Amino acid sequence: MEKEGETLQAWKERLGQELDRVVAFWMEHSHDQEHGGFFTCLGRNGKVYDDLKYVWLQGRQVWMYCRLYRKFERFRRPELLDSAKAGGEFLLRYARVAPPGKKCAFVLTRDGRPVKVQRTIFSECFYIMAMDELWRVTGEARYKSEAVEMMDQIVHWVRKDPSGLGRPWLSGAPASESMAVPMMLLNLVEQLGEADKEMASKYAELDDWCAQRILQHVQRDGQAVLENVSEDGKELPGCLGRHQNAGHALEAGWFLLRHATRKGDPELRAHIIDKFLLLPFRSGWDPDHGGLLYFQDVDGLCPTQLEWAMKLWWPHSEAMIAFLMGYSDSGDPALLHLFYQVAEYTFRQFRDPEHGEWFGYLNRDGSVALTIKGGPFKGCFHVPRCLAMCEEMLDALLSR
Amino acid sequence: MEKEGETLQAWKERLGQELDRVVAFWMEHSHDQEHGGFFTCLGRNGKVYDDLKYVWLQGRQVWMYCRLYRKFERFRRPELLDSAKAGGEFLLRYARVAPPGKKCAFVLTRDGRPVKVQRTIFSECFYIMAMDELWRVTGEARYKSEAVEMMDQIVHWVRKDPSGLGRPWLSGAPASESMAVPMMLLNLVEQLGEADKEMASKYAELDDWCAQRILQHVQRDGQAVLENVSEDGKELPGCLGRHQNAGHALEAGWFLLRHATRKGDPELRAHIIDKFLLLPFRSGWDPDHGGLLYFQDVDGLCPTQLEWAMKLWWPHSEAMIAFLMGYSDSGDPALLHLFYQVAEYTFRQFRDPEHGEWFGYLNRDGSVALTIKGGPFKGCFHVPRCLAMCEEMLDALLSR
Repeated sequence: MEKEGETLQAWKERLGQELDRVVAFWMEHSHDQEHGGFFTCLGRNGKVYDDLKYVWLQGRQVWMYCRLYRKFERFRRPELLDSAKAGGEFLLRYARVAPPGKKCAFVLTRDGRPVKVQRTIFSECFYIMAMDELWRVTGEARYKSEAVEMMDQIVHWVRKDPSGLGRPWLSGAPASESMAVPMMLLNLVEQLGEADKEMASKYAELDDWCAQRILQHVQRDGQAVLENVSEDGKELPGCLGRHQNAGHALEAGWFLLRHATRKGDPELRAHIIDKFLLLPFRSGWDPDHGGLLYFQDVDGLCPTQLEWAMKLWWPHSEAMIAFLMGYSDSGDPALLHLFYQVAEYTFRQFRDPEHGEWFGYLNRDGSVALTIKGGPFKGCFHVPRCLAMCEEMLDALLSR
Repeated sequence: MEKEGETLQAWKERLGQELDRVVAFWMEHSHDQEHGGFFTCLGRNGKVYDDLKYVWLQGRQVWMYCRLYRKFERFRRPELLDSAKAGGEFLLRYARVAPPGKKCAFVLTRDGRPVKVQRTIFSECFYIMAMDELWRVTGEARYKSEAVEMMDQIVHWVRKDPSGLGRPWLSGAPASESMAVPMMLLNLVEQLGEADKEMASKYAELDDWCAQRILQHVQRDGQAVLENVSEDGKELPGCLGRHQNAGHALEAGWFLLRHATRKGDPELRAHIIDKFLLLPFRSGWDPDHGGLLYFQDVDGLCPTQLEWAMKLWWPHSEAMIAFLMGYSDSGDPALLHLFYQVAEYTFRQFRDPEHGEWFGYLNRDGSVALTIKGGPFKGCFHVPRCLAMCEEMLDALLSR
């Protein structure tokens, strides 16, 4: 036990130092002092190679800065809060394509003009995360009402009427559900309901609905998590139905573990650990080179996505959170050892000791495929969220 | 010279045999006898792994079968023509999303219901190629009028009013031109105008317009072909502006060589060979492993596309056509040697001697990344078109 405590302590320090370095990278390179918001297209050394502003990543960085400010004494620094507020103002002014309509752009020019709009809910989801967390650190009610109004709009799009998203109805398109949708909503339910009984109560039914919808993605007699299923929880035909994304399953896993904790349901917890942590790890971990394959076909066929065998940073950061949370909640040492296994691989392969932050995209053999530190889909989010959450969990474990 | 003739003869035979094998693969595995049209999601051994029908690939396979039937004595086989006609009927019945509107789907279910619609012109372009070539082999006027009506619709979308494509106008979206658009139109001008003075005359102005627009993509004082430029031919900011696609440049190169032949303009031909054949090859050929990199950033920065360093089949088949055509038109032996260099690499790395057809997607080092023979973007088109055109060109060279 003493040995175990030492290992936990060593990882806590390692994660904490890495978090400091990662936050320093984004503080140094990503702030747009002129327009507010963040540059996320950053080369290996942090140099901006494109000044487009991706709305997912704007919202995520605002959220991350506020969360660090709120939860970590050492990050209670005015420059973090000021940058988060400037990012929040940028979103408030520019994210929506045609205010007062709530549909947000996917990407904006540096000065906030819309470049592309996705017909999905994800820009809006990260907008909510930013606003809710800004409310929590500033206490300004306008942020909270922005968050709640957008949340109600998203729930309407998902559960009542998707026509506002702009997708045409097509007779051959299967009524499929991507796991990403109930996952994101579940994450938002947790965000909005934290230490807020009124919000928790408002979204209690949605909390259960999301969990039930995610659980429907367990298919093949409980032997696989599939990324897309029909709305009534059946496997879909073709590649779409056979598609697996281990990183998503593991991320859904820890969202669901939080749900099980809210519900006080140890049986559900055991089911989640089995289906959303252990299954995806077993099928997704590359036995030859280590690391999680990005996509798989449940029948073992070759996926059609060119990047299927690459190793991306975010499935690994989500796996670290999932296994450490699984261990914290259950005490099962097998989960702690999986955390160590993933964390060792991740620190060895993704970290850049020279310039800070992590590489995002490796070849199957672990060599770096893209040297960028940020881009259209990688910003200040998965890496620091993982490091911060794992540091907190290790701290709690060590204080037990 | 005798030695050179022997090498040309050997390649002609090698290409011809490969063409037979490739056509046999698609004949054996891709025909949907029940609904017409073609399965293109085929595994390494030809087994169908998804029955969705991608409209680009339906149109391309109809075109390819008709072209082979029309130009090669040994392919004047009723089963090729019958399958092409069945594919044509499938397109006529199902490709358009809301007839009489001309917008076509991107992908259909096996029985022809629309699954996805792209807000671009490419499904429609391959629809035209299918219809025009069906007209040429059958003589049925309805095919020709389908082709011409769709062509006029596309030209309207591109040059007059794109609103029918369904893309929203966004204030931050640069008025950019992807080289793919004038390239495809130029290819269609050649298709529709072949041995048809009336059509050639109808589209003569468009022929020049397309060539001029493609030539605008030569940037950086003539030192680079950029995939996206502004509508008035200026470099665009950011990744979009710096994006290079060597395969597209080489394909545009041989479309332009045909244009220069139509115009009888040897000066233009020399310019095209320099800018669209030699430049992209020099910057795109991988000095370490051979093969053409898929995407590059003109400033040598890391592209954001995960597949940028992969080797795809179609840039190589287009390069083979471009260099052999460049040699045929100019007599420059350097171009013939580049043809040999690309063809040797291509036959060594992409062919599958065991099951036929070519792999489509290799890792940077030339190892196979995806074992599929067909998928959402790979059908019966680039490989047989390359083999057929090169066989014809070698035949002509040997008969001189």
